[in-house]
Amino acid sequence: MNNTTLITTDEWFTEVHSNLGTAISVKIKSKLHEEKTPFQTISIYDTINLGNMMVIDGCIMVTEKDNFIYHEMMSHPVLFSHADPKNILIIGGGDCGTLKEVAKHPVTSITQVEIDEQVTILSEKYFPNLCTSNKDPRVKLYFKDAIKWVQTTNSDNFDIIIVDSTDPIGPGEGLFTIPFYTDCLRILKDDGILIHQSESPIFLLNLIKSMRKKMFTAGFSNLQTLYFPLPTYPSGFWSATMASKKINLKTFRNNISQIPHLNYYSPNIHSAALIAPPYLQKEFEVI
Amino acid sequence: MNNTTLITTDEWFTEVHSNLGTAISVKIKSKLHEEKTPFQTISIYDTINLGNMMVIDGCIMVTEKDNFIYHEMMSHPVLFSHADPKNILIIGGGDCGTLKEVAKHPVTSITQVEIDEQVTILSEKYFPNLCTSNKDPRVKLYFKDAIKWVQTTNSDNFDIIIVDSTDPIGPGEGLFTIPFYTDCLRILKDDGILIHQSESPIFLLNLIKSMRKKMFTAGFSNLQTLYFPLPTYPSGFWSATMASKKINLKTFRNNISQIPHLNYYSPNIHSAALIAPPYLQKEFEVI
Repeated sequence: MNNTTLITTDEWFTEVHSNLGTAISVKIKSKLHEEKTPFQTISIYDTINLGNMMVIDGCIMVTEKDNFIYHEMMSHPVLFSHADPKNILIIGGGDCGTLKEVAKHPVTSITQVEIDEQVTILSEKYFPNLCTSNKDPRVKLYFKDAIKWVQTTNSDNFDIIIVDSTDPIGPGEGLFTIPFYTDCLRILKDDGILIHQSESPIFLLNLIKSMRKKMFTAGFSNLQTLYFPLPTYPSGFWSATMASKKINLKTFRNNISQIPHLNYYSPNIHSAALIAPPYLQKEFEVI
Repeated sequence: MNNTTLITTDEWFTEVHSNLGTAISVKIKSKLHEEKTPFQTISIYDTINLGNMMVIDGCIMVTEKDNFIYHEMMSHPVLFSHADPKNILIIGGGDCGTLKEVAKHPVTSITQVEIDEQVTILSEKYFPNLCTSNKDPRVKLYFKDAIKWVQTTNSDNFDIIIVDSTDPIGPGEGLFTIPFYTDCLRILKDDGILIHQSESPIFLLNLIKSMRKKMFTAGFSNLQTLYFPLPTYPSGFWSATMASKKINLKTFRNNISQIPHLNYYSPNIHSAALIAPPYLQKEFEVI
């Protein structure tokens, strides 16, 4: 297909990354739902090959085909990096896929603070497989602005904070800031760990560098970025960055036998995800 | 952007993966060249963010931005898996990026058999950084049909064969077959290793499984698929599969100090690339 005759039918959803000069398109069977909430526009499509797909403000958030990689990598590495994680906070994460993975661990409580209840309501309807732990008695779902929520939360409360946010535009923007990371550090216990999805390590390298710098400035001492594939996010190469005050983020427990149904995560994949290729090592030399 | 108003200007190149229900688009500044050779149509674009880009029969082959990952992973893992690689055969590889990486090693000879001389001529013009070793005295460039070439080549000739091919449609199709792999096995020395790019390990899993089965049927005993990101190939998650008669493909030399300018490859990245996530381990249980 050449550059003048492009996809012009209504059979495709296209996400344009105007800052990157790239776009990804997904062939759809039908649009199942679309609504404008007070926070964003949520669309749900049935696609030809990727199953159901949730789109927020024009960006693909979740597909049935590849969400397992993202959700497993946002949860298991950080939980296995902690000696005994009991109290977990998820910020964002409204589709509940990360929550489902966290609930596989013998944790005591899982608190999720998502700004937009419609994300969860639509996920329960269109992605029921992600929502199987929503009624777990250890889970508390709050639909509130997490930036304000962390400001008024007691110190030394959580072992793990997982920031499963959208991109740093729209409602997610305030989650990529020094004040937010400072609050996270305060409400984490001394041996606590934060993890935040940190975008593409090839197309959005400056964003990861900026996030790492902000985490460091907020008072985190150790940073460790994890690398993994994510076909429906820009570049298909994604990352999440862990930050701790004192915990070593290069070692982890490997007692996975208690965790059922792992499709992407394994201890060997955890080790592999810690490895930065030389071009990234050079970029991250300072922080 | 919703599903009815799509990219319709001539400012974008779009590659549609009709069998996958996905497409990738790249914003271009201009089309620098296009020609129909006896084998295929080659187009060269100047893009907004990915540098120069070569497209063959509508499929993105090389961009200046991300080709380093592919070329380093097609060359260094297989060379470091061999104790002392001296005579190297590259099949395809007309852009010469793999050849450039191979030439960083202290090998004796590099023979490249590419069917379409225009790929190399255009690479020399539009991707000069990939072609810096084309005139290395160890290099012999043949522009011939590799399928016939391997049939008439003496046995026990090569330490390494790198099949840097297009997809299994068009001129590349015959390179994904049992007769071709059988010839490769015959012209490899007893401790030789073949590597072939093996497509997306999430969107084209059946193709990898079929390739692995064909390599095994052709007489290779050990198979090892390598995993790495590749933003401009379908899904952004790519693979290459190594095959040997007797060499263990899980261990490798790590004396990289002799190899200059590595941007993606390192011994740790090599180890990481060997790790199949659980969903792939299950798929590859048989072979």
